[in-house]
Amino acid sequence: MKLTKLVGDRFKERPSDCVIDSHAFCVRGGYIKYVANGIYSLYHPMKKITAKIEKIIREEMDAVDSQEILFPVVLPGSLWEESGRFDSVGDELLRFTDRNDTSMVLGMTHEEAAVQLVKEYGNTYTKYPFSIYQIQTKFRDEARPRAGLIRVREFTMKDAYSFHTSQEDLEEYYDRMANAYFRVFERAGIPQVVAVKSDSGMIGGSVSHEYMLLVDAGEDSIVLCDACGYSANMEAADTIADNANCSPVSELKKMHTPDCKTIEEVCGYLGLPVEESCKAVIYQKNMTDEYVIVFLRGDYEVNETKLTNLLGEKIHPAVVTEESGIKAGFCGPYEQHAGCTVIYDKTLEGINSLCCGANEVDYHYVGLNIPRDIGEVEYHDVSKIRTGDICPVCGKRDIRISRGIEVGNIFQLGTKYSSAMNLTYTDADGSIKTPIMGCYGIGVGRLAASVCEACHDDYGPIWPITIAPWQVHLCLMRVDDPDCKAEADRIYDELIKAGVEVIYDDRNVRAGAMFADADLLGVPVRIMVGPKNLKEGMIEMATRDKKVQKLVSKEDIIDETKMLISELFDEINAKVRPLK
Amino acid sequence: MKLTKLVGDRFKERPSDCVIDSHAFCVRGGYIKYVANGIYSLYHPMKKITAKIEKIIREEMDAVDSQEILFPVVLPGSLWEESGRFDSVGDELLRFTDRNDTSMVLGMTHEEAAVQLVKEYGNTYTKYPFSIYQIQTKFRDEARPRAGLIRVREFTMKDAYSFHTSQEDLEEYYDRMANAYFRVFERAGIPQVVAVKSDSGMIGGSVSHEYMLLVDAGEDSIVLCDACGYSANMEAADTIADNANCSPVSELKKMHTPDCKTIEEVCGYLGLPVEESCKAVIYQKNMTDEYVIVFLRGDYEVNETKLTNLLGEKIHPAVVTEESGIKAGFCGPYEQHAGCTVIYDKTLEGINSLCCGANEVDYHYVGLNIPRDIGEVEYHDVSKIRTGDICPVCGKRDIRISRGIEVGNIFQLGTKYSSAMNLTYTDADGSIKTPIMGCYGIGVGRLAASVCEACHDDYGPIWPITIAPWQVHLCLMRVDDPDCKAEADRIYDELIKAGVEVIYDDRNVRAGAMFADADLLGVPVRIMVGPKNLKEGMIEMATRDKKVQKLVSKEDIIDETKMLISELFDEINAKVRPLK
Repeated sequence: MKLTKLVGDRFKERPSDCVIDSHAFCVRGGYIKYVANGIYSLYHPMKKITAKIEKIIREEMDAVDSQEILFPVVLPGSLWEESGRFDSVGDELLRFTDRNDTSMVLGMTHEEAAVQLVKEYGNTYTKYPFSIYQIQTKFRDEARPRAGLIRVREFTMKDAYSFHTSQEDLEEYYDRMANAYFRVFERAGIPQVVAVKSDSGMIGGSVSHEYMLLVDAGEDSIVLCDACGYSANMEAADTIADNANCSPVSELKKMHTPDCKTIEEVCGYLGLPVEESCKAVIYQKNMTDEYVIVFLRGDYEVNETKLTNLLGEKIHPAVVTEESGIKAGFCGPYEQHAGCTVIYDKTLEGINSLCCGANEVDYHYVGLNIPRDIGEVEYHDVSKIRTGDICPVCGKRDIRISRGIEVGNIFQLGTKYSSAMNLTYTDADGSIKTPIMGCYGIGVGRLAASVCEACHDDYGPIWPITIAPWQVHLCLMRVDDPDCKAEADRIYDELIKAGVEVIYDDRNVRAGAMFADADLLGVPVRIMVGPKNLKEGMIEMATRDKKVQKLVSKEDIIDETKMLISELFDEINAKVRPLK
Repeated sequence: MKLTKLVGDRFKERPSDCVIDSHAFCVRGGYIKYVANGIYSLYHPMKKITAKIEKIIREEMDAVDSQEILFPVVLPGSLWEESGRFDSVGDELLRFTDRNDTSMVLGMTHEEAAVQLVKEYGNTYTKYPFSIYQIQTKFRDEARPRAGLIRVREFTMKDAYSFHTSQEDLEEYYDRMANAYFRVFERAGIPQVVAVKSDSGMIGGSVSHEYMLLVDAGEDSIVLCDACGYSANMEAADTIADNANCSPVSELKKMHTPDCKTIEEVCGYLGLPVEESCKAVIYQKNMTDEYVIVFLRGDYEVNETKLTNLLGEKIHPAVVTEESGIKAGFCGPYEQHAGCTVIYDKTLEGINSLCCGANEVDYHYVGLNIPRDIGEVEYHDVSKIRTGDICPVCGKRDIRISRGIEVGNIFQLGTKYSSAMNLTYTDADGSIKTPIMGCYGIGVGRLAASVCEACHDDYGPIWPITIAPWQVHLCLMRVDDPDCKAEADRIYDELIKAGVEVIYDDRNVRAGAMFADADLLGVPVRIMVGPKNLKEGMIEMATRDKKVQKLVSKEDIIDETKMLISELFDEINAKVRPLK
């Protein structure tokens, strides 16, 4: 394709609303066009990239015996009522009525549609296991779309659903799918993606994993252990506080702590280590407004998702009223907090002598020993793990918190949807059973943007050859030089004939402008036909990442190009793990 | 793929709600699943078919220099307000508001999005012409979805948009696109599709064509001339009545015609030919309720679309009140119809002596001569052309009306959207101009269903090899016979290795059930491995349409299969016209 024919503009200035690099490059490079908040059109280069990603995904899904189907975007509300999600999901589920006043929704995931599709088919054990997937447009009415294609309202997603007659069978398939997911990311050129155990949330005690691309611009925090390779998201990582070397038991004493508002101020005023303090963080339950008081070590923070999961209901930061009896800033465990749910975090376990609020303005206790002064309490893990903490797997103090973008997730669903929607099968012994499900998602556009975020320099994306919009960017440096023009035309024709995907820039523009555009298009191999080199029978060839930069004779340029392309493919494929 | 793994049920009974065969087979064959009125999920075989159709479409669009992009399904209402369609389109446009109360629509076509996408890019004449297309989900809130995938509410559509600086350039591209459309249908196995000139409706005097597959189950009527090949849709075909041999001029006389309500009754009572009568059909304008009286030859019918286009506004059948002064059943042209719009249809032109209503209950005139008795009137063509009528192109009486399914349409849009949405470019001379657009649509699912409608027998679809879900259906006739099983397994493995798409039925079922399923899946080549033939080293091979049925030695079966597949491809490709 000639660059002059490519619809879309490329430009130099970074748009002010682009916070992360991939977003800026996608706009500056003519990849995406803003249509509405969180809604974009894709220009041809991005469409080519996503089509290649979709092809990789299809091949990997087919390889684990999932079969492609297609669900509708518009679904009847009644289907979501069956599963209970019509009411349980918030505003991100877009609901509307059609011309006949029938309630409809825009599908944001398709568990209900999947169960509906296989309801008759899956009625006998002989049909199991089976797996289906689609690549389809989804809509989630996100409150705060941002970062270009990373967090949008409308997106193309691959979602797969598997059905099993036993937990063992699900787990076996889940492992194959987990492996297929790694292969997708490896083939797309981001082998550095890690799978982290994730919070299974309100859905129940099932296993789930998020695939995280570790990049500074990521919006998620990921827990990693450099010693043993452990990884988890923040909600799923157990916090282990090190209280081994704390002070010995001492006497309980009430202390005057005037003008000390924070636990750090109190400890500073009293000359005590903050690691031996107990602070209170206060929430209210969304449904009842009942207070929830969390006591935890002064230097830790509450992880609200862990707390929500423990309580089994949603909470919000408390508005502490006078009537509540709670003394904000001075709340401590040495008192009955009637009518409140009190949670002791595990970080307090094993500390002999704690400093804590005295439930009286301007007073704190020191020397609190929970077993002695309060009695047996149950400790729960509701705090945020921190860099330098103890790894819950290997026990070393090698925990590191990184930023990441979630590029995929897999989930052992259990029977949540199959039982709610009454999907059953007759087992070999004639009994009626409920199948166990798994579900597996990858956002196509987000993956494309994530690769850009992981693979770029100051001038634009450096697309891996497996998903690059073209393989070769051919630059005719002097369109007014007939020899150059003839040679570039020849290279173009011969590469096209050889099945190579080429974008050909034969515009009459300065070299600087030509290279700036080439950098923004990020095509892996660049061929530059210029008069100086051509006089000596040579043509310049380089990779977008500058690792290869050389002069090649014009007789060899076609073969050398094909060889370089094949090497770039090999480089990526070498990092792809075997099929499971 | 093994048939045992294919998700979806096949069954014998024709569902009672399936009016046309393709719908019945799509349901019975496990191709589609009803989700809501006019909304279906696609099982794997239909997804494979539509994917192959999409590949053909992509190749043909790329070949006419259209580039693939992707628009959103959900569009801001403001975009549709710019074009004026937010208000002008009826209930089939699904409108809703998002969580921020912003007005949104579900895209039913993407002219607005196309203009928005190229607004900056297309600002100078040097960028023209260019063409973009997408294959994307559309939603149209049809009042009466029916016939399976033929008329649905949600569907996958290829829509292309081209942009030009002159009408000549548009027309040249329109021709190439028209040719590409024929190639798509020819490659999909329905070379019998005809392009018919279609009504350009309220949009203005532009040219448009519909691609019609002629099948009895079609919901549209198409005008064809067997003598010269002329084709048009009903609205676009000029009616030419043959009044050459009518009776001579005679005297105007009022006649008593008691109890004669219809024009046939009147003519019968008076012993006159209905071809020399003038009947009145009465409408009212939707906006003003003003009466519109159409006078036309007694044996013709009004084509309401022609009438709407002539008037430039919508009409509905009249409710004739007493105050109107119109005598329903006796309305004739020999009177001033004050306050009414009076239209004379061309079918009346040249008749010397007409029988018509006398505007008085139970009375008609005979011998009416319009030029003599009424004066010069303008005749318009607002009547329906009929089988046996005169061809407007070659003049022969060879007009035939057929039923058809519209499988695609192409349209010269003019500047309707570009000027409404203020898309302009600077021309070479510095002047600001508005580009001219074309748009081009094919419904993917409808095309799949149409091919089924055109290519089936009593037992199921006969898929053309170019879009068939698989190329070979391998039947192991006796799974309990180890020799048969080993041979069928070998054939399966070797065909897969050779890149052939095989569905393998190794179930333990009766031959009848096996063949019924194979018929429903409609795969072009069938290989049957049975004990009787295999004892003699032979394997049975047949095409789905029974044109080939033969025994092949087991040594030759792989090569013979590949050869047969290649012949089936050749057969289709032989009917594909060259690229333009």
